[in-house]
Amino acid sequence: MDEASVVAGTVYLVGAGPGDPGLLTRRGHRILQQCDVVLFDALVSPEVIALARPGATRMDVGKKGHGRSALQPDIEALMVAHARGGRCVVRLKGGDPFLFGRGSEEADALAAAGIPFEIVPGVSSALAVPAYAGIPVTDRRLASSLAIVTAACAAPGAAEQSIARAAGADTVVVLMGLSALPRVTSALAAHGRSEVTPAAAISAGTTRRQRTVVATLGTLASAARDAALTSPVLIVVGDVVRMRSRLAWFEPDTDAAAGRRERDETIAIRGPVRTDGRTGNRSPLEAL
Amino acid sequence: MDEASVVAGTVYLVGAGPGDPGLLTRRGHRILQQCDVVLFDALVSPEVIALARPGATRMDVGKKGHGRSALQPDIEALMVAHARGGRCVVRLKGGDPFLFGRGSEEADALAAAGIPFEIVPGVSSALAVPAYAGIPVTDRRLASSLAIVTAACAAPGAAEQSIARAAGADTVVVLMGLSALPRVTSALAAHGRSEVTPAAAISAGTTRRQRTVVATLGTLASAARDAALTSPVLIVVGDVVRMRSRLAWFEPDTDAAAGRRERDETIAIRGPVRTDGRTGNRSPLEAL
Repeated sequence: MDEASVVAGTVYLVGAGPGDPGLLTRRGHRILQQCDVVLFDALVSPEVIALARPGATRMDVGKKGHGRSALQPDIEALMVAHARGGRCVVRLKGGDPFLFGRGSEEADALAAAGIPFEIVPGVSSALAVPAYAGIPVTDRRLASSLAIVTAACAAPGAAEQSIARAAGADTVVVLMGLSALPRVTSALAAHGRSEVTPAAAISAGTTRRQRTVVATLGTLASAARDAALTSPVLIVVGDVVRMRSRLAWFEPDTDAAAGRRERDETIAIRGPVRTDGRTGNRSPLEAL
Repeated sequence: MDEASVVAGTVYLVGAGPGDPGLLTRRGHRILQQCDVVLFDALVSPEVIALARPGATRMDVGKKGHGRSALQPDIEALMVAHARGGRCVVRLKGGDPFLFGRGSEEADALAAAGIPFEIVPGVSSALAVPAYAGIPVTDRRLASSLAIVTAACAAPGAAEQSIARAAGADTVVVLMGLSALPRVTSALAAHGRSEVTPAAAISAGTTRRQRTVVATLGTLASAARDAALTSPVLIVVGDVVRMRSRLAWFEPDTDAAAGRRERDETIAIRGPVRTDGRTGNRSPLEAL
């Protein structure tokens, strides 16, 4: 689809990726360069929004956890109205448009209104944020199944129910989990995950503000609180977290990064781990 | 990272995305344009490989299911040798490099050899292929948890074990599942998923050869056989499959697509479904 043109009166549901503007897709970039209107969420990085055509109308429709925010029906009505007005509309969503974030509801509203639309998948934070922290979500030697859930649920208990259904997978990734962190880790423990399972919380992943706290399922909530992590935070639980000691390739050049490196030296996981990163010469399997 | 330069002697593990070259990332594209050597897998689309610098060395190291193929240690040795020779090396992998496909093992080998590397996440087939078939992997009304597994496991019974751990999630995506399809659907049914759960098999997703078969968990294996689907095939199981009747926006202009539309009219799922796509005006929730 990268060479296909952009059509007036169409809505493009575009995944903006996890933060690093290099992770926007070529198709998403091309659409942004040609669009008339951009409706973007709170978590979309400013560098991605800046790629829109200079004359384009930019509208922040981000739903904040607290305070003033756009309502879902209003966002859908805006998309429909602009498309009916003959404009090329980009609905820019953090990560991937069809993994949480109500992208499917918005596509459904467009379908119901008879507005043509295109889905432009994005790089999901669920995979890219762990990758930038040196954590592969699968590894043949450690994890052959991945589950992804969100802790940002409106209904009380809904996040815990989702986590219960996901707890069996080797690796569990939880999006938007900062305030819910104690509940998330408790729910995983209640559904059979050992308290000593390696676990990480990553703040502002893939950006220069990226910070990672590594602990265990039992200690992650207090470790993240001690480190004063700020939203957005993504949580990874599973043996793959141990690979970070060798694979942490992305080291933002900030004070926060220095703090992170210090914290990493207190990793409370069992078994031999290496902290010398890419300079060792032992067999990679030795340390697993 | 999109503006960062490419460094000689470094290996870039780049996700090529699911097939559509528009879904390559800007960072991946930039690295390809500047690289000296590209080592690519069997599933990487030729249009993506064609984006490499004209003078670059292109090497097919795809591991085929049967017959002659590169061995994993040979691939790792090649990356190391080219990087030590001062070249900029791209290791181009289908989808995302850290979700199956041994990307973490390759990063581990680079770390052990002291070779600097960068991970460039990609758009995963696990999300993008369903999206191109009009199937969101989550939807607040239908599915709040997603599990991803692969059926391409060397050890006998390994795929079934992974599926058992993933079966609890609302939506289950299985990669590389064509030959294993009967075993995959049986394993899901054995682990508590109803035989009437909506299910889809998607062949060559996001490309012009995309074909989709929609059935139920109990009937998907025979439906895919009757349709003579060819690899690669991705399987989606869960209530979200029902949304395809409204959200199928990508219709490859081929005979296969015509065949697919016919087959869709025989969808064996319960409850009201709409087949009129984006032209209806009933409330989107009415049909769920």
